[in-house]
Amino acid sequence: MNLQSLARRTPGFSGADLANLVNEAALLAARREKTKIGMEEFEASVDRVVAGPERRSRLINEREKRVVAYHEVGHAVVMEVLPHGDPVHKVSILPRGLALGYTMPLPGEDKYLTTRDELLDDITGLLGGRAAEKLIFDEMTTGANSDLDRATDIARRMVCEFGMSDEIGPLTLGRRHGNPFLGRDIMEDRNYSEEVAQKIDVEVRKIIESSYDRAVGILAAHREKVDEIADVLIEKETIEREQFEELMAGISPRVASGLPRDEGGNPVAPEAGGPPEEPRRGREVKPKLEPGVA
Amino acid sequence: MNLQSLARRTPGFSGADLANLVNEAALLAARREKTKIGMEEFEASVDRVVAGPERRSRLINEREKRVVAYHEVGHAVVMEVLPHGDPVHKVSILPRGLALGYTMPLPGEDKYLTTRDELLDDITGLLGGRAAEKLIFDEMTTGANSDLDRATDIARRMVCEFGMSDEIGPLTLGRRHGNPFLGRDIMEDRNYSEEVAQKIDVEVRKIIESSYDRAVGILAAHREKVDEIADVLIEKETIEREQFEELMAGISPRVASGLPRDEGGNPVAPEAGGPPEEPRRGREVKPKLEPGVA
Amino acid sequence: MNLQSLARRTPGFSGADLANLVNEAALLAARREKTKIGMEEFEASVDRVVAGPERRSRLINEREKRVVAYHEVGHAVVMEVLPHGDPVHKVSILPRGLALGYTMPLPGEDKYLTTRDELLDDITGLLGGRAAEKLIFDEMTTGANSDLDRATDIARRMVCEFGMSDEIGPLTLGRRHGNPFLGRDIMEDRNYSEEVAQKIDVEVRKIIESSYDRAVGILAAHREKVDEIADVLIEKETIEREQFEELMAGISPRVASGLPRDEGGNPVAPEAGGPPEEPRRGREVKPKLEPGVA
Amino acid sequence: MNLQSLARRTPGFSGADLANLVNEAALLAARREKTKIGMEEFEASVDRVVAGPERRSRLINEREKRVVAYHEVGHAVVMEVLPHGDPVHKVSILPRGLALGYTMPLPGEDKYLTTRDELLDDITGLLGGRAAEKLIFDEMTTGANSDLDRATDIARRMVCEFGMSDEIGPLTLGRRHGNPFLGRDIMEDRNYSEEVAQKIDVEVRKIIESSYDRAVGILAAHREKVDEIADVLIEKETIEREQFEELMAGISPRVASGLPRDEGGNPVAPEAGGPPEEPRRGREVKPKLEPGVA
Amino acid sequence: MNLQSLARRTPGFSGADLANLVNEAALLAARREKTKIGMEEFEASVDRVVAGPERRSRLINEREKRVVAYHEVGHAVVMEVLPHGDPVHKVSILPRGLALGYTMPLPGEDKYLTTRDELLDDITGLLGGRAAEKLIFDEMTTGANSDLDRATDIARRMVCEFGMSDEIGPLTLGRRHGNPFLGRDIMEDRNYSEEVAQKIDVEVRKIIESSYDRAVGILAAHREKVDEIADVLIEKETIEREQFEELMAGISPRVASGLPRDEGGNPVAPEAGGPPEEPRRGREVKPKLEPGVA
Amino acid sequence: MNLQSLARRTPGFSGADLANLVNEAALLAARREKTKIGMEEFEASVDRVVAGPERRSRLINEREKRVVAYHEVGHAVVMEVLPHGDPVHKVSILPRGLALGYTMPLPGEDKYLTTRDELLDDITGLLGGRAAEKLIFDEMTTGANSDLDRATDIARRMVCEFGMSDEIGPLTLGRRHGNPFLGRDIMEDRNYSEEVAQKIDVEVRKIIESSYDRAVGILAAHREKVDEIADVLIEKETIEREQFEELMAGISPRVASGLPRDEGGNPVAPEAGGPPEEPRRGREVKPKLEPGVA
Repeated sequence: MNLQSLARRTPGFSGADLANLVNEAALLAARREKTKIGMEEFEASVDRVVAGPERRSRLINEREKRVVAYHEVGHAVVMEVLPHGDPVHKVSILPRGLALGYTMPLPGEDKYLTTRDELLDDITGLLGGRAAEKLIFDEMTTGANSDLDRATDIARRMVCEFGMSDEIGPLTLGRRHGNPFLGRDIMEDRNYSEEVAQKIDVEVRKIIESSYDRAVGILAAHREKVDEIADVLIEKETIEREQFEELMAGISPRVASGLPRDEGGNPVAPEAGGPPEEPRRGREVKPKLEPGVA
Repeated sequence: MNLQSLARRTPGFSGADLANLVNEAALLAARREKTKIGMEEFEASVDRVVAGPERRSRLINEREKRVVAYHEVGHAVVMEVLPHGDPVHKVSILPRGLALGYTMPLPGEDKYLTTRDELLDDITGLLGGRAAEKLIFDEMTTGANSDLDRATDIARRMVCEFGMSDEIGPLTLGRRHGNPFLGRDIMEDRNYSEEVAQKIDVEVRKIIESSYDRAVGILAAHREKVDEIADVLIEKETIEREQFEELMAGISPRVASGLPRDEGGNPVAPEAGGPPEEPRRGREVKPKLEPGVA
Repeated sequence: MNLQSLARRTPGFSGADLANLVNEAALLAARREKTKIGMEEFEASVDRVVAGPERRSRLINEREKRVVAYHEVGHAVVMEVLPHGDPVHKVSILPRGLALGYTMPLPGEDKYLTTRDELLDDITGLLGGRAAEKLIFDEMTTGANSDLDRATDIARRMVCEFGMSDEIGPLTLGRRHGNPFLGRDIMEDRNYSEEVAQKIDVEVRKIIESSYDRAVGILAAHREKVDEIADVLIEKETIEREQFEELMAGISPRVASGLPRDEGGNPVAPEAGGPPEEPRRGREVKPKLEPGVA
Repeated sequence: MNLQSLARRTPGFSGADLANLVNEAALLAARREKTKIGMEEFEASVDRVVAGPERRSRLINEREKRVVAYHEVGHAVVMEVLPHGDPVHKVSILPRGLALGYTMPLPGEDKYLTTRDELLDDITGLLGGRAAEKLIFDEMTTGANSDLDRATDIARRMVCEFGMSDEIGPLTLGRRHGNPFLGRDIMEDRNYSEEVAQKIDVEVRKIIESSYDRAVGILAAHREKVDEIADVLIEKETIEREQFEELMAGISPRVASGLPRDEGGNPVAPEAGGPPEEPRRGREVKPKLEPGVA
Repeated sequence: MNLQSLARRTPGFSGADLANLVNEAALLAARREKTKIGMEEFEASVDRVVAGPERRSRLINEREKRVVAYHEVGHAVVMEVLPHGDPVHKVSILPRGLALGYTMPLPGEDKYLTTRDELLDDITGLLGGRAAEKLIFDEMTTGANSDLDRATDIARRMVCEFGMSDEIGPLTLGRRHGNPFLGRDIMEDRNYSEEVAQKIDVEVRKIIESSYDRAVGILAAHREKVDEIADVLIEKETIEREQFEELMAGISPRVASGLPRDEGGNPVAPEAGGPPEEPRRGREVKPKLEPGVA
Repeated sequence: MNLQSLARRTPGFSGADLANLVNEAALLAARREKTKIGMEEFEASVDRVVAGPERRSRLINEREKRVVAYHEVGHAVVMEVLPHGDPVHKVSILPRGLALGYTMPLPGEDKYLTTRDELLDDITGLLGGRAAEKLIFDEMTTGANSDLDRATDIARRMVCEFGMSDEIGPLTLGRRHGNPFLGRDIMEDRNYSEEVAQKIDVEVRKIIESSYDRAVGILAAHREKVDEIADVLIEKETIEREQFEELMAGISPRVASGLPRDEGGNPVAPEAGGPPEEPRRGREVKPKLEPGVA
């Protein structure tokens, strides 16, 4: 039993959550007619709690399975290659909960601050799925909807809450407040002029567009790898970290070779500067199902 | 008894729904003084549950009946011919529920992802009714209202939720949230500038306009077929798949011969690209009454 | 007793409505010291149920009576002459309910679809009252308010719901939803840009303006008839179909001689096309009090 | 006892209102130690019910009294002179209810329709008070607030509800609906574009501006009369119809000598046309306190 | 005991308010070990009721005390000098209620009408505090907030409710209605176009700006007096009318020597006209704490 | 025991708050096995009550710790150097409550008025954290979010409530009112035109931008000190006033040497004027956790 690993995969779990987890694992072990709960059962229970129950009964046709596989590989390869991307823990095209597939990041250390570059890489990772669809099939599907929603939300917050757009400056825009009367939703008062609203739109668009271009660039640069991993995924349905690393052999993780380059051929981070950062491993404590196709 | 066929026509039915279905069929068989429930009774029950009760008492005058017939044939022919259209299961001008006529698609396999081209074909199919009205009578009726509503809704979601417009890019616009206080309705916060609102309008319009032109083009290219099928429909009031296929003989299904063509005469998909797709059969699991005249 | 005629004047009446109607007629017959209920009593009861009780106690001065008479004759002549107008059943300047006068259309067959040309004629008929005020007295009164409201509503729905404006195209604009919280009213979310809002205004205005011009044109072309019928109406207070037809003798019903004409002198339907339509009798099942002065 | 006169001054009174009126009159007669209720007591009771109780305790200083006197004379003279103005029943600077003074119109016949010219004259009468303040004192006071509110409301309704502006045309703008949730207020949805909103503003402004100019013109043309009547009013505090007519001797009522004139010197009604109308007596049944200074 | 003076300082007081006042005065007399309530105790009680309890415990530092003193003297001198300003009753830098200082106007006669010039002088008086801060310290403090709020409110009402802006004309803008649902607040529907909204902003700004310039001009013209009175105020903490008049000796009250002058050197009222008005004493019955620093 | 110091650190504390404070201190003394509560325990209790409990269990990685340290030193150095900045009481990178670090100002005298220059310095101090991140790491983090929010709020109030922008003038914009129905939030009605909204945006931006530039300028001018203090902070985790003063030795507090300079090299306050102010000690009574990284 690797308790440390379990602990890292269950950040923010309450005591009751953990009890529930053990219970699930016990039930699973019983179903498997084991007398002891093994690491495997714990892992499966974590997956179930974090990503929802498997939906093996869903009959996905071959064409859709292929789209889903490339979509997930798109996320996984982009995330693995980006300087601040989340290293991949598992990629799967077994439907779980509402998603047709999912890419799970490697659990890392706790993290309390996020930089602008990290947010840009998060957005790029989220757009990796759509980028793969476009690159491979020259098509777009409805499956990327929640990826786009989350990427847009991060981009908008960079501009309006975190003061990370030079065009807008180090200030906040819009008043956010939960409205007890209208339920859970966060309402946002627009306390700025139409001109600023337009600037926000332009800035958000720039962030999304350049991130999308980076994602496409990374996948195009590693097109053969992408095909290879997608084939394996379609066959095996799930790829664990170890195998993923083998498949990615030869490609430096944490170095985005697909970055847009300047005239001299050097990689150019979109509107970012500062000293080059060394590769980083593990971050973000909230378990996230990196970005499933719902 | 063809159980498979029944199963495919009743996707998403709960156990209680199925029980109800059998009950309806039994009542119908009894009324027909049969001792066994046959496939016919089951089919009729499915139609009733999916599309509402027949309204034979409605006296539609000859002129309106003609408009309705062409409207439905407009849907049917466009859907049958489009590369991603739903093959037609049944066309009818017997009023059912609130509709004066209806076109039912062939039940297909379960489907979880929808592509941009498929959505464009859905929109084109929905606009087939209005296109026929305009082409044949050079008139427009109020009957196309719900078709237009649904087509507009799909186009708007393509632009705002699915990131399928190049002018807007791979991001989402507007915050959607159900409002428990104001009932069932989904409210949408406009979180973008007037300039983007205008771009959205232009993009939605382009999608609708080009789809409508495709629908008109398809019907004009097959004008004689359209007249022929409409005549049969006016006479028989309902056309089943088998007869529909016979009537469509000589026209390749899933190949939209009416596509707008480029200067060299080749068919041009509106703003789409990618490799030509082979004809496809069956999709979309939600039973839909393709697009009745309410 | 002409049951068929009664039936056609009472579409949508429930059993209880009909029982109530018979009761009213019986009371009236009793008051008239008849031993049998005659067709007259039934007719009077229908008028009362459809248009509200007579208000003979209202003392309308001579000047207002003249305005009301021309207003109603404006509606009646325009409706009778328009290709898709409702033939007139009765014109009256006896106040009923909230109205100072009313024009009742002839009950026709049931109707489920309405064409663009029919809607344009409905609008033109509604504007006939104001057109008469302007033509005869060169004045405008507050009495046309509900006519204008209804005409504007139809024009707006043509543009926003029925996709009948070429400038806007075959799509719908605005989300309509009943709001249980705020009572009966239908709320409309504006889901379009300011530019489209302006286009809608222009289109609605064009429809109203051209219809109003047609109404004025028709009344000007038949000015002598209009004066003659108004004189009779002022004297008799009510004109029934038979007498109305006599008064209209020499004018072809269902042919709008007052249509705006093109340079060659041919009548031009505003922005409509298609083959000329033959005169039509009877339509619209909902009993309507065509357009009273409230 | 002049019952007819009493009846005309109490339109819309319920039985209970009349009983209350008689009661008030009886109390007043008792206080005056009369054994019979005379016409005077009834008149006083009507004034009290219609305009609120007298507020003799309010100490208005001489300067304000002068302003109020000219304000009321402004209303009265303009109303008396306008072709469609309400003839004056009584002018007073005795505070009543919330008002510092009031001008009561002569009760006339019932009236159900109002023409554009009549509405323009109503607005002009309402602006007579402010016009007098400006003309005599070259000042403006807060006292004209409710006059302006009512004048603006009429002008806005002419444009948006009654289709009386040629720039806007014969249609209605804005959806009016009472909102049970938010109390008595009528809410208005703006269902038009910014461009139309601007046109409305321009049209309302034109109506108000030209009416105000007419009012100023009338008062300037009769400046000596205005001073004379104001002096009497300041002295007597109330002027009844009979005395008012004597004071106005030599000025034709119902002929607005102060109308703006065209280049040839002929009176020009602002944007109105049609045949000249003969003077009219009595209109508007709702008792109105024409336009007090609150 | 000067009952008249007491009565004038307590306008709008109910019987219960007066009883309370006497009670407070009795308590105060007792605390002062007097056997009779004197005029002083009554005065102190009125101050307490009108302006809130003294807050002697607040330790205001010397720097702030100086700012507050000049702020109050700014109000007082401007009010005393303006043609329609309120003569000063008392100026104090003893904190009371939420205010750090206050300027009380002399109670005058009841007043029911307010002219445009009077409102302009009210605004100018309100801006006197900020004007002094700027003139003396070349700084601005948060303490003028409620002054600005009240000045802006008056200016806005002049433009939107009282029709006192020639650019807007004699009409009202915006629908004001109390909303029982949302509490005490007055809501205002914007029933005008963006263009008019902009005009309103410009007009309000013009009124505020010219009034502020007048206030600065008055204070600059009397700079030595201002310094002298401020010094006395810092020393004595409160200045009563008598002493204030002595300090102002040599400056004609009610004549704004600081008015902006035209090219010929004559004082120019901003956008006002009419005959010069004689000095006026006493107005506005509502006791007001002219304009404290909160 | 330094009671005075304790009193100054606990402004606005109720009796119950103080009782609680003593209790906390007693518990802490007990835990430390002391028989008397010392000043240390009281200090710790104040920190706990004001800034929330320490969160020693939070494992901040070295990289984040460095960012937090520079962020806090950014605040501290800027605040110490600015003419109206709050002198620093304590700087810490021990997480407390929701913050990863905090900078506490020295408790000063009570203060009731705030000048424009003071508000500008408050904003500059708040932006010191982000300025340090940018200067040192050429990056931006999400941790500055609440700093930006508070800085923007002050800037917006300077423009809209305190009349401190010359472009807007001495008036207030927007109606603020608490909405009991929607909870605690303050709603703001936009009662101004789009043009003014845009001016507000520009003015707020100018204030933020120039303050940010000042902060960057100050930190750049003292870059070595900043590095030195950050190193100490990373090592010691908390720096008290005494040590901070030693570390700042050689730099005049209250003189912002980093101010932008004019062409002649003299420091230029952004859009401020007036006589140079002498250094000031202590202000703002509300205990504030100057500006923690949440």
